[in-house]
Amino acid sequence: MEEISYSPIGIIRSPYKETKGTPIQTSGAKGVRGTVEILPECVEGLKDLDGFSHIILIYHFHLSKGYSLTVKPFLDDTPRGVFSTRAPKRPNAVGFSIVKLLKIEGATLYIEDVDIVDSTPLLDIKPYVPEFDVKEAIRTGWLSGRAERATETEADERFK
Amino acid sequence: MEEISYSPIGIIRSPYKETKGTPIQTSGAKGVRGTVEILPECVEGLKDLDGFSHIILIYHFHLSKGYSLTVKPFLDDTPRGVFSTRAPKRPNAVGFSIVKLLKIEGATLYIEDVDIVDSTPLLDIKPYVPEFDVKEAIRTGWLSGRAERATETEADERFK
Repeated sequence: MEEISYSPIGIIRSPYKETKGTPIQTSGAKGVRGTVEILPECVEGLKDLDGFSHIILIYHFHLSKGYSLTVKPFLDDTPRGVFSTRAPKRPNAVGFSIVKLLKIEGATLYIEDVDIVDSTPLLDIKPYVPEFDVKEAIRTGWLSGRAERATETEADERFK
Repeated sequence: MEEISYSPIGIIRSPYKETKGTPIQTSGAKGVRGTVEILPECVEGLKDLDGFSHIILIYHFHLSKGYSLTVKPFLDDTPRGVFSTRAPKRPNAVGFSIVKLLKIEGATLYIEDVDIVDSTPLLDIKPYVPEFDVKEAIRTGWLSGRAERATETEADERFK
């Protein structure tokens, strides 16, 4: 299969300058503010986005070099298949976070609940829509009883 | 900013051979079954994934050529900024769907609620975790009162 090339549409700004100490999920980043700077040539695409309280950011884990198919995730001591985790060291280092959108001014999005490292290249923005994105009757495998701990778990350097 | 290159980890198989007639969201694809064929060199990363009832597929809209910053989405007659929509014709044609995972056999994932066109290249799989992915106190802008109609709306060829 062919390689797929993307060109960032902007950059994410946050208080986290390195992986160590960054929240591992938005649930652990309550109230943390950041911005997204959109490239001038993409600003037209932001129209109507301000009606949404939450947006999905799809971005590239730019600090993640190489990957492992088996990882020891932040929330467990047992090695797990990488696709059953949210670890950044994945074959394609795509990240996604659902953040609060506070306001948009020109090319700048003001966001909250930011679990993303500063200078992360942004690939896409989508509106968060519960009718599409909330599922019921869920089983959460190894994360059952562990996912809640993401509110108090910070990243360390294991995926550097 | 630098280009980012990804190499597909597998391919999505579905009953939809073309854009026209494909459900526009998983909510309109209830019970529709498909598979994901993972490349042999990535199969190790599937370990532990079978504990999850729902998975997030991140893929490339391979039939989408070029993009528009303003689009007329399937659920509205008014042109909207592309980032406030889920339309496939985006600067970076990244798609994402939350599907049911029925079972895994070797390199094959059996999935349900598939709103994805056959032969779509898969970039990543992540576990769906309500503690991370369900948000409250939501406003949904122009999709308010319209998102429900995704259950009965099929794609046409407008984004070809």
